[in-house]
Amino acid sequence: MSTNSTFSAARAEVDAAAIAPLPRSRKVYQQGSRPDIRVPFREISQGDTPTMFGGEKNPPLTVYDTSGPYTDPSVKIDIRKGLAAMRGSWIAERDDTEQLEGASSKYGQARQKDAALDALRFELKRQPRRAKAGKNVTQMHYARRGIITPEMEFVAIRENLQRERYIEMLRATGPDGEKMAARLLHQHPGQSFGAAIPNLITPEFVRDEIARGRAIIPANINHPESEPMAIGRNFLVKINANIGNSALSSNISDEVEKMTWAIRWGGDTVMDLSTGKNIHETREWIIRNSPVPIGTVPIYQALEKVDGKAEELTWEIFRDTLIEQAEQGVDYFTIHAGVRLPFIPMTANRLTGIVSRGGSIMAKWCLAHHKESFIYEHFEDICDIMKAYDVSFSLGDGLRPGSGYDANDEAQFAELQTLGELTQVAWKHDVQVMVEGPGHVPMHLIKENMDMQLKHCHEAPFYTLGPLTTDIAPGYDHITSGIGAALIGWYGTAMLCYVTPKEHLGLPNKKDVKDGIITYKIAAHAADLAKGHPGAAIRDNVLSKARFEFRWEDQFNLGLDPDTAKDFHDETLPKDSMKVAHFCSMCGPHFCSMKITQDVREYAKQNGLQEAEALQLGMQEKAMEFVKKGSQIYHQR
Amino acid sequence: MSTNSTFSAARAEVDAAAIAPLPRSRKVYQQGSRPDIRVPFREISQGDTPTMFGGEKNPPLTVYDTSGPYTDPSVKIDIRKGLAAMRGSWIAERDDTEQLEGASSKYGQARQKDAALDALRFELKRQPRRAKAGKNVTQMHYARRGIITPEMEFVAIRENLQRERYIEMLRATGPDGEKMAARLLHQHPGQSFGAAIPNLITPEFVRDEIARGRAIIPANINHPESEPMAIGRNFLVKINANIGNSALSSNISDEVEKMTWAIRWGGDTVMDLSTGKNIHETREWIIRNSPVPIGTVPIYQALEKVDGKAEELTWEIFRDTLIEQAEQGVDYFTIHAGVRLPFIPMTANRLTGIVSRGGSIMAKWCLAHHKESFIYEHFEDICDIMKAYDVSFSLGDGLRPGSGYDANDEAQFAELQTLGELTQVAWKHDVQVMVEGPGHVPMHLIKENMDMQLKHCHEAPFYTLGPLTTDIAPGYDHITSGIGAALIGWYGTAMLCYVTPKEHLGLPNKKDVKDGIITYKIAAHAADLAKGHPGAAIRDNVLSKARFEFRWEDQFNLGLDPDTAKDFHDETLPKDSMKVAHFCSMCGPHFCSMKITQDVREYAKQNGLQEAEALQLGMQEKAMEFVKKGSQIYHQR
Repeated sequence: MSTNSTFSAARAEVDAAAIAPLPRSRKVYQQGSRPDIRVPFREISQGDTPTMFGGEKNPPLTVYDTSGPYTDPSVKIDIRKGLAAMRGSWIAERDDTEQLEGASSKYGQARQKDAALDALRFELKRQPRRAKAGKNVTQMHYARRGIITPEMEFVAIRENLQRERYIEMLRATGPDGEKMAARLLHQHPGQSFGAAIPNLITPEFVRDEIARGRAIIPANINHPESEPMAIGRNFLVKINANIGNSALSSNISDEVEKMTWAIRWGGDTVMDLSTGKNIHETREWIIRNSPVPIGTVPIYQALEKVDGKAEELTWEIFRDTLIEQAEQGVDYFTIHAGVRLPFIPMTANRLTGIVSRGGSIMAKWCLAHHKESFIYEHFEDICDIMKAYDVSFSLGDGLRPGSGYDANDEAQFAELQTLGELTQVAWKHDVQVMVEGPGHVPMHLIKENMDMQLKHCHEAPFYTLGPLTTDIAPGYDHITSGIGAALIGWYGTAMLCYVTPKEHLGLPNKKDVKDGIITYKIAAHAADLAKGHPGAAIRDNVLSKARFEFRWEDQFNLGLDPDTAKDFHDETLPKDSMKVAHFCSMCGPHFCSMKITQDVREYAKQNGLQEAEALQLGMQEKAMEFVKKGSQIYHQR
Repeated sequence: MSTNSTFSAARAEVDAAAIAPLPRSRKVYQQGSRPDIRVPFREISQGDTPTMFGGEKNPPLTVYDTSGPYTDPSVKIDIRKGLAAMRGSWIAERDDTEQLEGASSKYGQARQKDAALDALRFELKRQPRRAKAGKNVTQMHYARRGIITPEMEFVAIRENLQRERYIEMLRATGPDGEKMAARLLHQHPGQSFGAAIPNLITPEFVRDEIARGRAIIPANINHPESEPMAIGRNFLVKINANIGNSALSSNISDEVEKMTWAIRWGGDTVMDLSTGKNIHETREWIIRNSPVPIGTVPIYQALEKVDGKAEELTWEIFRDTLIEQAEQGVDYFTIHAGVRLPFIPMTANRLTGIVSRGGSIMAKWCLAHHKESFIYEHFEDICDIMKAYDVSFSLGDGLRPGSGYDANDEAQFAELQTLGELTQVAWKHDVQVMVEGPGHVPMHLIKENMDMQLKHCHEAPFYTLGPLTTDIAPGYDHITSGIGAALIGWYGTAMLCYVTPKEHLGLPNKKDVKDGIITYKIAAHAADLAKGHPGAAIRDNVLSKARFEFRWEDQFNLGLDPDTAKDFHDETLPKDSMKVAHFCSMCGPHFCSMKITQDVREYAKQNGLQEAEALQLGMQEKAMEFVKKGSQIYHQR
């Protein structure tokens, strides 16, 4: 990926690698209550169990799919045209928005008129929408009025992962189908720390969670291309991937490519953190081509507008930036409204000061003017903008710790408490809110972060960066933070912001993006399992069954990254015939514990330890019976 | 690394990359109570703080060093000769061992006589040692008789990491030295779940921990080349790296290379799990060149001796194998004595059966003979062998779960309880013991493993493989398991057995070994921090300080993998001048939160918020004072 090539809108196209379906996967859709609610999933087909292990059929498994139309071969992808406006009719039919004649922000108007940008510009035919005067178009507003929107129904279907269909397919495999279903659905009871996840997510449940602020659906009316998704502690744990250029590196096509790459591997939302050139145009390309919600930190762009001089920021510039981005379709804004003047000196004695960019900008502004933050002062004005487009708040943690040393300090928790107060202000306006969290926190201090957030922020979704559990591994901070992310996800965090191996060192390339994504998919799933999220263990069980039965291809394909799994296997055993081998390179053909276990089962069967019988009796009793018998006959010590 | 080249002892040499010292690191030794106790450390030097940040001197930091003489430029490395027998005189002067005339195992004798092996064989001049008749030569035996061995003193010095010297150096940096020391030594109180780690590890403390079985020093009298190290919950959490050939792949030089590579990056012990050709000779090369304890699973080799037919195993063959390996110098044996006949049917209903190789071999044997395990039956005979060479037990978890589905089941805990009983049998013989643990366990079930182990095994060190917290990420199981490893390390596990990205897929190459090691160093250190291990946070603090002060080279060099950190940084900013840049590629020169924080501090200082004053007063009071003042003057809402 070039970092300096000149971008041309005319030549823009998406990377072929981001379009091909994953191996043995196909896109399937489940229709909702109306034909235009078509919820996408990825269906992974499997081979039959080898005869020696029972020979049963293994139905395809449906998994959550963030990749959008890119992996649907029936959709023609042209990033110059952008994705179809799937939500367009839902938004229009609510009849509470109006189409504007053009951008209403001054900056948006100026960029549109600038002929020098023609070659860069995404040509959007559609004009932006805004709520009609006096209207509130947030999902929370609808939810509180008892309305189940198509977005809510979409989310409900999506979260259930077609589990009921899968169970039916298991049952239909044959006479042992019921047993197989019981086996593959088995899951250890979780420890949810107060989360309350129903077995089946209904549209009404989604509505209720949105209404009480415990979940959000980031869904700007100007991003009709997005596929609705929910962020909340009673839904699957989500992950976010950051992309974005900087003054030193990257261009538009790189960023679009990173976005399509991130969603291919499981990014649930993408934040565009650009701070370099042509931020406005880069963002437009990303949004028009993104099926996932896009988040930004508007203060970054506002700062560019005043040439990097924080003290020159004004409410007017910031406000214009919010409107500019809201009308492009940004789904959530990180707003550092909690960096209040009185909290700033609490950071003076820190080891690593203020590490949040937004936080440090606002700190500098506050001190330069000896004034309370204009963002804090104008918070209700911001709410008015948010509800006119349904942009969700992501209340930024500008005072998050940048080292384990600074974790859980006074500055951090003072800000968190303020974020809790602001959450309630936003809710007063029916504006959707999530709250950002740290950062760098040793393992044993992580739970306090979650507890404090739950206490102060009234179960508004928590959205954390890691946290990194140690500072000693630059180059591996996807791992130092993946540990913390898994823990805080277990404790109740709704979305985990990924960290790539390049954290602290440089801008992530595609490999780094993928490493970050897969690490965070692991953390999120480990959290779902620990919380006891209904059905979370199915994929683990299905993959483990494939592994045990030496279905190599199925083992690869059921995993988070089939390509890497296959490559790793092929490094030692490249031949295709080895993909059906009943052994592996770790132990070789004559020495395989899985094989020996099969022998043990076979032997046990032949010698009167009928496995089927054991299954029926319940293994525990059977085993205990054997223990007693065995103890009498064989125990010779 | 070739996997099929022919090995020749004459040409054997160590990879140059494994010998070069790490950047700005040098080997230092601390002498103990006698000149031949020289404990190695790695000292990482740092640059001065840039003038704009205060200009102070930053003393070198001492870190734990597992790399042995390889990173000491004053030592000439010749793997044909092996390492110096550092512990030779300690063992000899105890006068409780005798030099044998040659191997006493039949197999060892046969291999020595086989001329076809001449080209492969490591030429050891020294004859093996064994305890004199009636003597017990274990560290536990000495400890229980009140003797502090040089090994114990070595360990005590090693665990303290020259912390007192470092504090002195900090104090000596200038008038603010005391303040800097207080800052860099700051650590959040830990949550240790009952571990009791003193601030200073004394030789007497080590002796006491060994005596009560809460720690072990794996130190076979036939491995005098080893540098003593401790495994126990009141010491730094350790990690193990597995290497070893299989019937399909690898040769002797590859395995020696993997060993030197593993210890370079922090492997505290190495297990040679070879199951392929020339296991005996491969092991000899590894041990003679290893400064870290070597573990094995003797049943693997015993099985090779009966051509892979588990049912043909006999106590005599196993016993001969134990003696063969003990006389080569293996420091700990994984012994699957807990796979008892009555437990085997408890696994029949598992999703993934018995996944431990040793466990499945023993299960097959038990069922084939309808008899209790001969290892269990002969456990006291094994103790007699162990104490004649000081081989430590690693009581194998042959029934560990191979999937989250099977986690914490009856078979697993039945075995664990047996391992607890066997621990007490071993202790009766003063034989050192650690206990192996799983495996595949979802996060919320991990603590039960630790709690059960503590309960049944009386605080004998726990040594776990991961555990993997989800099964859905083949190709990334270093990460799925690193999460579990960090957790169980926090809860009290003494040593974490690494998992590489190739787990379930193939044999690890050097890159995989390094990825596994670094991931597990992270997990172990995150655990130390969470437990509140005294001084654990120093390296985090020192690195964070370097990071905050834009000392790029120091940030790289203080991390676990300086090479990768530097490479990542250089991908975006390759020029050397950028290594002193006060910005980075993530944000660029005009947009840097660290820089803005400096501005904030500067501004705060100029405006009467004296940082020094704040430090003296204690920041909390000062900040609160400011809050009150600020609230009155500036708060306008």
